[in-house]
Amino acid sequence: MVNIGFIGCGQMGRDHIDRIANRMGNAHIVAIYDLNRAAAEKAVADFGLDAKICDSADELIHAPEVDAVVMASRNDAHLEPLLACIEAGKPVFTEKPMTIDGADSWKVVEAEVKAGKKLVQVGFNRRYDTGYEQMKEIIDSKQIGELLCGDCRHFNAQAATSYYRTDNVVNDTLIHECDILHYLFDDDYKAVEIKCARQNRLNPNGAENLREPQIAIIEFQHGAIVTVEANVNCQYGYDIQCRLVGESGTVSLPDVATPEVRQAERIYHSISSDWFARFLDAYDKEMRAFLNRVERGEEPSGQMATAWDGYVANVAADAMLESLHNGGRVEISLPERPALYA
Amino acid sequence: MVNIGFIGCGQMGRDHIDRIANRMGNAHIVAIYDLNRAAAEKAVADFGLDAKICDSADELIHAPEVDAVVMASRNDAHLEPLLACIEAGKPVFTEKPMTIDGADSWKVVEAEVKAGKKLVQVGFNRRYDTGYEQMKEIIDSKQIGELLCGDCRHFNAQAATSYYRTDNVVNDTLIHECDILHYLFDDDYKAVEIKCARQNRLNPNGAENLREPQIAIIEFQHGAIVTVEANVNCQYGYDIQCRLVGESGTVSLPDVATPEVRQAERIYHSISSDWFARFLDAYDKEMRAFLNRVERGEEPSGQMATAWDGYVANVAADAMLESLHNGGRVEISLPERPALYA
Amino acid sequence: MVNIGFIGCGQMGRDHIDRIANRMGNAHIVAIYDLNRAAAEKAVADFGLDAKICDSADELIHAPEVDAVVMASRNDAHLEPLLACIEAGKPVFTEKPMTIDGADSWKVVEAEVKAGKKLVQVGFNRRYDTGYEQMKEIIDSKQIGELLCGDCRHFNAQAATSYYRTDNVVNDTLIHECDILHYLFDDDYKAVEIKCARQNRLNPNGAENLREPQIAIIEFQHGAIVTVEANVNCQYGYDIQCRLVGESGTVSLPDVATPEVRQAERIYHSISSDWFARFLDAYDKEMRAFLNRVERGEEPSGQMATAWDGYVANVAADAMLESLHNGGRVEISLPERPALYA
Amino acid sequence: MVNIGFIGCGQMGRDHIDRIANRMGNAHIVAIYDLNRAAAEKAVADFGLDAKICDSADELIHAPEVDAVVMASRNDAHLEPLLACIEAGKPVFTEKPMTIDGADSWKVVEAEVKAGKKLVQVGFNRRYDTGYEQMKEIIDSKQIGELLCGDCRHFNAQAATSYYRTDNVVNDTLIHECDILHYLFDDDYKAVEIKCARQNRLNPNGAENLREPQIAIIEFQHGAIVTVEANVNCQYGYDIQCRLVGESGTVSLPDVATPEVRQAERIYHSISSDWFARFLDAYDKEMRAFLNRVERGEEPSGQMATAWDGYVANVAADAMLESLHNGGRVEISLPERPALYA
Repeated sequence: MVNIGFIGCGQMGRDHIDRIANRMGNAHIVAIYDLNRAAAEKAVADFGLDAKICDSADELIHAPEVDAVVMASRNDAHLEPLLACIEAGKPVFTEKPMTIDGADSWKVVEAEVKAGKKLVQVGFNRRYDTGYEQMKEIIDSKQIGELLCGDCRHFNAQAATSYYRTDNVVNDTLIHECDILHYLFDDDYKAVEIKCARQNRLNPNGAENLREPQIAIIEFQHGAIVTVEANVNCQYGYDIQCRLVGESGTVSLPDVATPEVRQAERIYHSISSDWFARFLDAYDKEMRAFLNRVERGEEPSGQMATAWDGYVANVAADAMLESLHNGGRVEISLPERPALYA
Repeated sequence: MVNIGFIGCGQMGRDHIDRIANRMGNAHIVAIYDLNRAAAEKAVADFGLDAKICDSADELIHAPEVDAVVMASRNDAHLEPLLACIEAGKPVFTEKPMTIDGADSWKVVEAEVKAGKKLVQVGFNRRYDTGYEQMKEIIDSKQIGELLCGDCRHFNAQAATSYYRTDNVVNDTLIHECDILHYLFDDDYKAVEIKCARQNRLNPNGAENLREPQIAIIEFQHGAIVTVEANVNCQYGYDIQCRLVGESGTVSLPDVATPEVRQAERIYHSISSDWFARFLDAYDKEMRAFLNRVERGEEPSGQMATAWDGYVANVAADAMLESLHNGGRVEISLPERPALYA
Repeated sequence: MVNIGFIGCGQMGRDHIDRIANRMGNAHIVAIYDLNRAAAEKAVADFGLDAKICDSADELIHAPEVDAVVMASRNDAHLEPLLACIEAGKPVFTEKPMTIDGADSWKVVEAEVKAGKKLVQVGFNRRYDTGYEQMKEIIDSKQIGELLCGDCRHFNAQAATSYYRTDNVVNDTLIHECDILHYLFDDDYKAVEIKCARQNRLNPNGAENLREPQIAIIEFQHGAIVTVEANVNCQYGYDIQCRLVGESGTVSLPDVATPEVRQAERIYHSISSDWFARFLDAYDKEMRAFLNRVERGEEPSGQMATAWDGYVANVAADAMLESLHNGGRVEISLPERPALYA
Repeated sequence: MVNIGFIGCGQMGRDHIDRIANRMGNAHIVAIYDLNRAAAEKAVADFGLDAKICDSADELIHAPEVDAVVMASRNDAHLEPLLACIEAGKPVFTEKPMTIDGADSWKVVEAEVKAGKKLVQVGFNRRYDTGYEQMKEIIDSKQIGELLCGDCRHFNAQAATSYYRTDNVVNDTLIHECDILHYLFDDDYKAVEIKCARQNRLNPNGAENLREPQIAIIEFQHGAIVTVEANVNCQYGYDIQCRLVGESGTVSLPDVATPEVRQAERIYHSISSDWFARFLDAYDKEMRAFLNRVERGEEPSGQMATAWDGYVANVAADAMLESLHNGGRVEISLPERPALYA
């Protein structure tokens, strides 16, 4: 049984609280914190938690009854608590992205290296999606040889109002690709370029605020090239596509299974606009993996995204932003990977 | 080059005339006949034919310039011209069904046996559909072992007014299955049973006139069992499905290929209501096969439906009608297959 | 939190123990019983349970710390514990089938009616499969009108040795269809017939021991007809198919989503032979539904299979067995549904 | 009836001869020419043609019995005969590409403009593929709004030995995309860039001779961006994919329909390596369109690729080659489109 300290009670946070309280067999939330105390109180009441409401992330992290920390606060509030967890030697799960940029993420890596221990696990949930898991297995088996190229597509039905900034296509959307492609290819990035395609007029707030679709051209150290389309106002649904080409074959992420209906001169499957529902199982599996490894006293490994992975994703996103702002291809170079993450 | 005498200038007939005149390289229509002379005249004018208009099927069949006959007249007008063609030694292609029942079709078989030559080819066009051809190839390769069972489904968007008689579900629709299943299984029928399912209220003329959907349960001599659903008011499209189960796998008729569209929370492919368009290629290939074998002086063989096949389909349909009228399972027994059709 | 008494520690039982212990947030197994005490001891050790090992089902059911019972013992050992649970007023979840036949199941119904309370929930897990849930939603919305007919197919890669009896095709396989079709159609059965198709030679123990595939023809009170194929030696995988036809459209159970691979002249998706994995999520959701309703003090409702549903499935299976043994169509008539299950 | 002069009796030429001789109803090949006279003689013999063998393309073009010319000679032998046909006022169908580069193709355009008449039709056969036709119809209907972006993929199982030059990925493969994308988007190109992805080791002749896969990034004047992958040693089959994204939905080229087989833990469709078979129907429809418009005395229009289209494709390919050789993004600017092609 793992005693959890929980930070951040917004929409994503409440979803994780529900998950931990009701769908995991081996965890209790014993302490909770939100910058807005009322949000923490509401979560305690709504989910019937027997948890202490803390006055600061620091108090929560250092509470002796807290075995491990789960964090779903705002992106820009991740860094300090992560460093505090590492300092305190407590395992921590943070929602993605690990921090707001490569420079901050490097501080997390450095802290872990100094501590000599991997404590941080980043919530790049796609790694736990069954479809991506199966793709990874096929890729790693080398049955289709080395990966050479590929194309991915991201579709949101509509961009949320809060999303309405051109940079968010990189920060909130392409960041997922930055992690999952690094994970699937098991290779580092060499360069990226972002191009804005013809503007979608169904973008309700105007092109000046949100330029999209964006096309990312991603080059890997070993030469593979992947193109990614990020469409955030496609109208039709939430749709994640990934098709990779190996030397002797291709592999593609499956669509979500839904009944086939034949009606009104169409053969169709429904596709939902609900991004949250799309990866619900992945979120469950990811949290279960975190709790189980904490219970067994293990460091993050295998499928889990470490602080290094979080850093790699941030560095790639930084380069994408530079390309988005200044145009052209931006090269990426990473420091040597510390032995801790070998 | 084959000189064709053409009988029957209705909708189906005009389609075949267009086919022969404009899409085949090796045939000329040199004589034409329709019970309604005006229809023949109109066809000659519309398609710019250089063809003699005959006063009877008999005149046409015996015209010395006619090498072979193509017949698209009404089902109940097939028998006499077929017998005349056999008598005259002229190859003949007739639209399906060969005649109106097993008794009449037996007369055609007897005439051919007496003549010692296969001249008749029956227009069971599905045999030339690429999807069915590929299924046949897979089945014949025995890669999935012997066929054990299967289910087929026939869907018309709406029954035509002219179709509005319960027997027509057998006569016009299930007759296709009677031929294609016999062809795919390469086995004879042992028994059939027809059951009427819950009546579709979207049947515009009332259940008393057209009881459907009908479910056919078809048993083969070697034990295989196939169920067939015939839906003739399904509203959504013209849709032909066939899924067969072998000892180590299954094989299914493909849907018609159309673009995938993702729009309005659906991933869809269009399906047409146009039954004619569905098998257009098959009609072309079937006619080309007929003309080529006539040009080479060959008897019908292989993929082509012979008079014996036409007879087998009629006998099965007769048994289905008996079951439809009287209920219960109806056994089928055939006379020995004449050596001519071995 | 629900305190569970658990009966039956075989393969299925151990799976449920793992589920309750590790994937549900609101249940503890506090007592356990198996006819073979060693099996119970092993389960306690393997899953680290803090549970009392009981000497009888009765002792377990009456233990004051047991709030509810979960039962995964052999089919023929269900009846007495079910009656004891009802007598004791304790909610009980039993693996399917509820009992070995309609007569025994009727005793359970009578006991509940006498008690005036629904306590029994039957583990017809397909009701909780996401694909079937989505089909049910589409059907209940009436978007395709009333259901008229359909066909279902069940495929096992190989029949287990323990399965090797012709009756088991009904008892272990078709019983699932007996429940799910009743559930999807929301209609009672009128008649069934079983026909044995051509024997699969890949059946390793010989046809005399296991005649299959079997074809079931199922008629509903409102006239719908469904055909079911049960193939238990299909070699290729575990595959559950269900396609239903309404007045204006059709709806089909989706295949399990797996990556598309293009390699070696094939475009393919993998299909597993593992029947257990196929419905893992459904088992989880079903158990969660049981625990949640017990925690809230509610009787089974909605999606859950009640004792009445368990009885209906057993009666249909009895009729199938009669047809299998004696041939022909067997009519089904049910007593009036008690008001408790209205 | 159209009397055809035929130039070029290689593989592609023989296929067109077979098509014209045996599958079109309204054309005769009356004259034939090949640089290698024996090839022409063999074609006449093999296909039973009643055609004069000419000593030069010029002799053939000017033969009074020749109504129209069909040309399947080598790419670098197209220009002179095209100019001669225009001079002679004879309709001509040439295999793609129209000439070897934009400069030569411009001479054809100029000649037509001078003649004041469109005579040339270029064999960009994909325009007649049913899948592309259906995509075009959906796009032109504006049901998914304006096109914003997209990705296409080209796969050959193996590159032919004759193909083994890096430039041929552009000249023989991407040239198809240069035409079909221009056609589907109904927009001009703004810029292209070619990047070579990780080299496929299954390339038998070595990377120095054939660098591939190649990734093309294609920008349109109105802002749309399409990425194209050209894989010419993918091993698994001949596979043409095209997925385009509009403002409210996406549309994709369908795969070729083949039976679904379920066997050996796979659900699969076959995909052929035969590129010729893939577009057989398109070749037929394209030739029929040519012959019919010639018979009716019409200039090329609508779906047909004109000399202008041939020029546009060559210009785009020239820019691709420049990028391939020198790296980077290459802008494309076209002269004003002559009124003849408005």
